[in-house]
Amino acid sequence: MAHLEHQNARFLEIASSLAPTLHSTPQPALGVVVPVPSSTAALGWTTHPGEGLEGGRTFTDGEEVVLDFGGHRVGHLTFRLVGVGIDGQMPDSPCRLRFTFGEVLNDVAEEFEPYTGVLSKAWLPEETITVDYLPQEVRVPRRWAFRYVKIHVVAVSVNFRVRFENILAHAVTSCPPNSNPPGLTFASPKWAHLEEKDKTMLQRIDEVSLATLRDCMQEVYEDGPRRDQRVWIGDLRLQALTSYSTFKDTQLAKRCLYLHAGVPFSDGRIAAGMFHLPYPYRSGNFIVDYSILYTCAVLEYVQASGDVEAGRDLYPTALKQFEFALTGLNEENVYVCQEAGGFESIDQERWHFVDWNDSLSRSSSIHSILILSLRALSTLETLLSLPPSSHVLPSSTHSPTSLVDLLVESSRKAFFRPEQGVFVSGDKDQISWASQAWAVLAGVTEGDEAKVALRKAYEEGGVEGVTPYLHHYLVEAFIKAGLDDLAAKHIISYWGSMVDAGAETFFETWVPSDPKLSPYKSFALQSFCHAWSATASLLVRRLGME
Amino acid sequence: MAHLEHQNARFLEIASSLAPTLHSTPQPALGVVVPVPSSTAALGWTTHPGEGLEGGRTFTDGEEVVLDFGGHRVGHLTFRLVGVGIDGQMPDSPCRLRFTFGEVLNDVAEEFEPYTGVLSKAWLPEETITVDYLPQEVRVPRRWAFRYVKIHVVAVSVNFRVRFENILAHAVTSCPPNSNPPGLTFASPKWAHLEEKDKTMLQRIDEVSLATLRDCMQEVYEDGPRRDQRVWIGDLRLQALTSYSTFKDTQLAKRCLYLHAGVPFSDGRIAAGMFHLPYPYRSGNFIVDYSILYTCAVLEYVQASGDVEAGRDLYPTALKQFEFALTGLNEENVYVCQEAGGFESIDQERWHFVDWNDSLSRSSSIHSILILSLRALSTLETLLSLPPSSHVLPSSTHSPTSLVDLLVESSRKAFFRPEQGVFVSGDKDQISWASQAWAVLAGVTEGDEAKVALRKAYEEGGVEGVTPYLHHYLVEAFIKAGLDDLAAKHIISYWGSMVDAGAETFFETWVPSDPKLSPYKSFALQSFCHAWSATASLLVRRLGME
Repeated sequence: MAHLEHQNARFLEIASSLAPTLHSTPQPALGVVVPVPSSTAALGWTTHPGEGLEGGRTFTDGEEVVLDFGGHRVGHLTFRLVGVGIDGQMPDSPCRLRFTFGEVLNDVAEEFEPYTGVLSKAWLPEETITVDYLPQEVRVPRRWAFRYVKIHVVAVSVNFRVRFENILAHAVTSCPPNSNPPGLTFASPKWAHLEEKDKTMLQRIDEVSLATLRDCMQEVYEDGPRRDQRVWIGDLRLQALTSYSTFKDTQLAKRCLYLHAGVPFSDGRIAAGMFHLPYPYRSGNFIVDYSILYTCAVLEYVQASGDVEAGRDLYPTALKQFEFALTGLNEENVYVCQEAGGFESIDQERWHFVDWNDSLSRSSSIHSILILSLRALSTLETLLSLPPSSHVLPSSTHSPTSLVDLLVESSRKAFFRPEQGVFVSGDKDQISWASQAWAVLAGVTEGDEAKVALRKAYEEGGVEGVTPYLHHYLVEAFIKAGLDDLAAKHIISYWGSMVDAGAETFFETWVPSDPKLSPYKSFALQSFCHAWSATASLLVRRLGME
Repeated sequence: MAHLEHQNARFLEIASSLAPTLHSTPQPALGVVVPVPSSTAALGWTTHPGEGLEGGRTFTDGEEVVLDFGGHRVGHLTFRLVGVGIDGQMPDSPCRLRFTFGEVLNDVAEEFEPYTGVLSKAWLPEETITVDYLPQEVRVPRRWAFRYVKIHVVAVSVNFRVRFENILAHAVTSCPPNSNPPGLTFASPKWAHLEEKDKTMLQRIDEVSLATLRDCMQEVYEDGPRRDQRVWIGDLRLQALTSYSTFKDTQLAKRCLYLHAGVPFSDGRIAAGMFHLPYPYRSGNFIVDYSILYTCAVLEYVQASGDVEAGRDLYPTALKQFEFALTGLNEENVYVCQEAGGFESIDQERWHFVDWNDSLSRSSSIHSILILSLRALSTLETLLSLPPSSHVLPSSTHSPTSLVDLLVESSRKAFFRPEQGVFVSGDKDQISWASQAWAVLAGVTEGDEAKVALRKAYEEGGVEGVTPYLHHYLVEAFIKAGLDDLAAKHIISYWGSMVDAGAETFFETWVPSDPKLSPYKSFALQSFCHAWSATASLLVRRLGME
């Protein structure tokens, strides 16, 4: 089969042997709610209590109800649908129902039409079913990500109404039950100054982060269970790192690393994303930064698990990615990429992601990510007792470490502006969070210089990130630079603003001042449970708050 | 459970033991068609050939195709849905598809909205599904009645198109394979005068009738597999009669007779219809004529099968129905019912059906049906070696036969107009096909008087029937009165006009001059495969054409 052409069968067998058990937990609804517009709610909606279903409430054409299951889960919906005859009549026709699954109230309170999104409309979380005869136990097809469920009765006959009994959500995850880590205690004296409200918020942020990660842990580490439902390398790296320090999973991470290595392009590059159903296959797009961050993900897996054998398996795939990435260097050994536009201007064959901010210049960040990944490659070689690769750059004899030295030097020359104390990127010397964060993480700058660069970009209007993905690396850079207080403050302000907006899991894209921003031109295409935002739990642990 | 209150458990056990085997036959589509408006087609549409699917034709959002499977079947649709990446991309989203199943071209060529029907909109033959990952073997949920299938691609992503492979219909019926009777030969000298084109048409009418009956033979004798999908007594009687003389089934008829007797109202009446899923339960409505025709159905079953034991089981139920029906007699022993209006003016507790013609006066017909049914009761008693019931009419000592004599006399007095030679009904002395046909079938008239009455109503503008149900009884009366040529002529003109309109199975309602007439105010709610129209095959055999 065409899709098998470049597969590594052994890798896929290993991945298959690591398929996790899915745990299912039945959960009743907490109650019925009525969405109500709110000018003070960040996303525009609040709820009033609605008439419950306990008293045998029945429904006819055009009537609907919104159930609130509390929290967020990924899973299925079941119920018993009963027909109640009117005036001596009996159920005498099928019943057609439309379900809308809401991660946030907007999903169930707003119309999806007119549809403006640029991704497949088939991702919209709605399903219409027809139940032929009543009473019947119904399982709504497909798996959903939701807190709310709107049930709209499209059609019954005039002779009967319908009643819903025993409505249950069945939450599904491959994260084992009771694997939540202990909560945050802030026992370290260095957090003694934190106010109670901040501690309370950080504890809630940790809970929501863990729920986010849990709900993305399915047969693979999904980026988001509502949409995409696939493994993206960049997302996987952060999910795995967070899980190593919380749920202590290493096997699902291993499975995903093997899956990615198992379905490369014909030239050995690994795709930005991969699908595991109906069989493993790669996505059609290639993200330069993701491809080299794969090396970091392999290194971190070996460090977390001690599984040197897997490291040796995956090392050649990791090494291979640099060949392509290094072709982006110009004659001065500086990585240069086209200025990015929005989603629709992406070069799918050479995509530089870094963040969904359309106006971000990415050259400086990619250059730093290259350095960071080469450092990881070198560390991995040491850890695996492999000789340093001497041919990272084709037609050169550079080892990873000597290449790092070269690139640090070219980076400082090309991107660092000593007079301003910041790293810039692009023709217009753009100052951004991304450029500083990645320069710090790559070790291109350190000490006071790193602190100044980060503070300047952060406090003096540098181009910001619109995704928790970039916010993660910003906070990681704060921590690496010794700016723990700033890290804590930013976690509280950024992830906390999602909590204040009602998040039960953290979002794919989030700009507090522009809460409905969507890279896909439709708020309904947002993933409101997105793995890369689960790193708040990783960050608070790195800060020693546990 | 409430629904079990008045059940006869033994009857339902017997019915359950008679559940038939369903036979499934896979059938590929004949090709792709494009519906085209036609001013000469009775139903307004014809087809042109469309681009086939063999060459790997692919589809994206908004594109659709109409498949023609030829003929008519009841069953399921399966196919393999394949995603075909565009420009190096891969299938990366679910695919949402909408299916419309067409018994006639109108179903797939016209919009269902705005919906004007008075029955549940859930009967509209359309289904939307979302296929999460590709390739995948897909089975469209639910069972459908169709010749055509329109597949509309609601949504894929911009990165792939979809291809449909191995599309199969799986025709389902409980009619055993190869049970078709020999075709019509017209061997009897009395048909020597028939023109070839009439013989050809009658042969086609027989084929379409048998297909109609076959597709209504499911777990029960359904009235129509597209809509209702239940057993109505009046429909069942004609289905069973037709089957006795063609497919030779008696067991499915037995099952349905037991099912009806198994779920009566609390006062012993049997409902007009019954549902067998998810468990047997009666409909909420009561049709006087249907309830007493149950006796005819039991008698005919015993005659066809020799199953006296079942006859004795069901006799008390049959007898019970007369108690209620006889309360409709006035002081002159004449049956009087309210003039009927349309569907929405039906008295569900005392419904007199006879036909769907809104303007038909039914009193005379019901009176005759009462006589016919009492005669059947008497014959049944003889056949079962039971003494004549002496208490058919409460507080009287009439036996069925003495009551028949009484009612024949009162009928001729109340309804027959010797000067016109016809039976009338209602305040306005309405002359109708129904009044003559039932008077003849009940033996209220015979010989030349019967011939004159029938001819007058038929040829001089009597109120007609709009359903094949009444057309059946008209033709049966022609045959009983010795008007075989008229019977043959009417079969050719009436059932033949459905053939000319493209019928692959015969319709529930049909008026050649008003082809879109619907008792339910929506042509899309029509059953285009309706059991009571399958009697053409019975009638041609009664005429000795086999």
